[in-house]
Amino acid sequence: MKTRSPIITLTTDFGASDWFVGSVKGVILSINPHAQIIDISHQIAPGDIASGAFILANACSFFPPGAIHVAVVDPGVGSQRAALIVQTRIGFFVGPDNGLFSIVLEQHPPLQVRRLMNPRFFRASVSATFHGRDVFAPAAAHLSRGTALSAFGPRQADYCRLPRAVIVTEPGILTGEISYVDRFGNAITNIPGSSMSPTGRPRLRVKRRSLRLVTHYQAGPPGQPIALVGSHGYIEIAVNGGSAARLLRLNPGMSVKLTY
Amino acid sequence: MKTRSPIITLTTDFGASDWFVGSVKGVILSINPHAQIIDISHQIAPGDIASGAFILANACSFFPPGAIHVAVVDPGVGSQRAALIVQTRIGFFVGPDNGLFSIVLEQHPPLQVRRLMNPRFFRASVSATFHGRDVFAPAAAHLSRGTALSAFGPRQADYCRLPRAVIVTEPGILTGEISYVDRFGNAITNIPGSSMSPTGRPRLRVKRRSLRLVTHYQAGPPGQPIALVGSHGYIEIAVNGGSAARLLRLNPGMSVKLTY
Amino acid sequence: MKTRSPIITLTTDFGASDWFVGSVKGVILSINPHAQIIDISHQIAPGDIASGAFILANACSFFPPGAIHVAVVDPGVGSQRAALIVQTRIGFFVGPDNGLFSIVLEQHPPLQVRRLMNPRFFRASVSATFHGRDVFAPAAAHLSRGTALSAFGPRQADYCRLPRAVIVTEPGILTGEISYVDRFGNAITNIPGSSMSPTGRPRLRVKRRSLRLVTHYQAGPPGQPIALVGSHGYIEIAVNGGSAARLLRLNPGMSVKLTY
Repeated sequence: MKTRSPIITLTTDFGASDWFVGSVKGVILSINPHAQIIDISHQIAPGDIASGAFILANACSFFPPGAIHVAVVDPGVGSQRAALIVQTRIGFFVGPDNGLFSIVLEQHPPLQVRRLMNPRFFRASVSATFHGRDVFAPAAAHLSRGTALSAFGPRQADYCRLPRAVIVTEPGILTGEISYVDRFGNAITNIPGSSMSPTGRPRLRVKRRSLRLVTHYQAGPPGQPIALVGSHGYIEIAVNGGSAARLLRLNPGMSVKLTY
Repeated sequence: MKTRSPIITLTTDFGASDWFVGSVKGVILSINPHAQIIDISHQIAPGDIASGAFILANACSFFPPGAIHVAVVDPGVGSQRAALIVQTRIGFFVGPDNGLFSIVLEQHPPLQVRRLMNPRFFRASVSATFHGRDVFAPAAAHLSRGTALSAFGPRQADYCRLPRAVIVTEPGILTGEISYVDRFGNAITNIPGSSMSPTGRPRLRVKRRSLRLVTHYQAGPPGQPIALVGSHGYIEIAVNGGSAARLLRLNPGMSVKLTY
Repeated sequence: MKTRSPIITLTTDFGASDWFVGSVKGVILSINPHAQIIDISHQIAPGDIASGAFILANACSFFPPGAIHVAVVDPGVGSQRAALIVQTRIGFFVGPDNGLFSIVLEQHPPLQVRRLMNPRFFRASVSATFHGRDVFAPAAAHLSRGTALSAFGPRQADYCRLPRAVIVTEPGILTGEISYVDRFGNAITNIPGSSMSPTGRPRLRVKRRSLRLVTHYQAGPPGQPIALVGSHGYIEIAVNGGSAARLLRLNPGMSVKLTY
């Protein structure tokens, strides 16, 4: 029976065109040739920490416990922002302390937060602009080889959180916003599907329209907008066979109201 | 000697920006940490089953026999369309029964077609919108661990086929159409290269132009359109150093005629 | 302890949409199922050999020695250009002899250059248009299984080099050009950071602007262009939180001057 290869996932804004992702993978494999590197996404808009946090949170919980998740959306690289290594019940997280882990750590509270400081686990020469390659990749690779968490740096009490759009609750009404538009043009809100009462007749209001909540995409008439609980657990606005974002001109930040 | 890792390929319209591909890979590795996951393409246009079928058919036969090919272009997710698991001489296919496998199964006839129904091999909770993650990924992972095909569901007599543009044959003339435009702007027809007589002086007509058939891209003068048998085995229209699709404004569905 | 899987990297202009990359991976795994295939980039602009050479050179040195780097940007496929297999201290290179390896081989001089000619290591039928799949992939896979370099073909004295923009040196001034624009809009010059004297007050001139050299992106005021030594070792033009290429309309080929 083969040994299980340690899994290291990557979530970045590096894009797929340049050498950034390739060099990160090279660094990891130079330290741990047995690592199994899995791309989550490299197409986060440059510097868009909120989208990176949402994508990471939606993917990482499906991996085996013990997986190491490296995330790098790091407009502050080279400045004073801290570097983190975090242990949770579902796995480890390595990256900048700039809010990128705030969604996943709200869902899976940290067991241990450490500041990544020990240069022994960095590349010999650390550039000021590419900590993905020089700091986070080598730290993750050493962690995957069994280096103890305590070796990487001192404990840190807390971590950076993103401001969250508050969901104001009136009786029977939740107010939220669109937090992400996916490739299919589905506009995903920050209202969890679990907010709805199972017996009610919920409707979602967006841009003066009131949408019926259905169970799956084809439950709506072709070309008409509908609302449903997406596979991520949040309420989303969709169009059967089309793009809700294009049809209704929806963007992140727009207000929505759920009557449930 | 190491054991061979089972290969699972992915062909989807999920794109590379969101968490879809990452969560599918997480689900597979949670069930079979030894699976070797290979991306064929995630850039199929949303819902474009015909292109997905063409891409899958062009790639899958190069993999070792026994590889498991998961394909998900699934606009009907959540509706009544069936889910399939198919055995062929070149490997296994897992995905929706919507025509996505019709080209590959015409080339490599199925040895066994089964309807994927046994919830034991699905994720504990199946969403109505993301069967790639909740149905097809776990089924493929269980198959890669050696679960017998018969465990997944009952045999099914047939599978969904895409309508194919009929190739009308007059003496010495084949009529077909452009079926795909690739990244280099090559316009690929549905006329197999094997249709040509080896001794003739074949020409391809498209949009009132008559193109000479050559053997490779640089056999044509730079900037001029030519026709040749592409590496996929079909006749394609190309430009040495340029994009035939852009130069001649070619799109899928346009008619072509081969005089051979 | 597991055996180390041989690493094969891929750097191509195949894009991620079609079946090209998938079929190359299938061919490799059919010959060596233990190969660990790592994508460097498939998004090089079609036929852009210079960018391919730059991307490959920036990524490959981070991989473990012995890695096999397959690079295919090959507008001359099917013509008389030679196919190469090259050994260096950092690993092996397989691809067309068209300049694609000229940057990396300048940094890591070849120990052995051979012309890839032995059809025993090609696919049984070689297309005229897809040597990535039919020649380079199988050769790399055989090399990864331990086939001796000498089996692939005869030694070749030299290899094709790209013309390089000469860096003219006046006292205290270096003249170069922009050689690459990355995804973040950083415009990378061909002037190595090591050209600067550590005690001077260097400035970079581009399009009538004179930019201060700083140490990292956030050392510049938000929205203002700066210059710095990038993680690749060359001087680049950047904007803290923005795109220098968009702001200053910079493109490859534009002239820059370093006063150091």
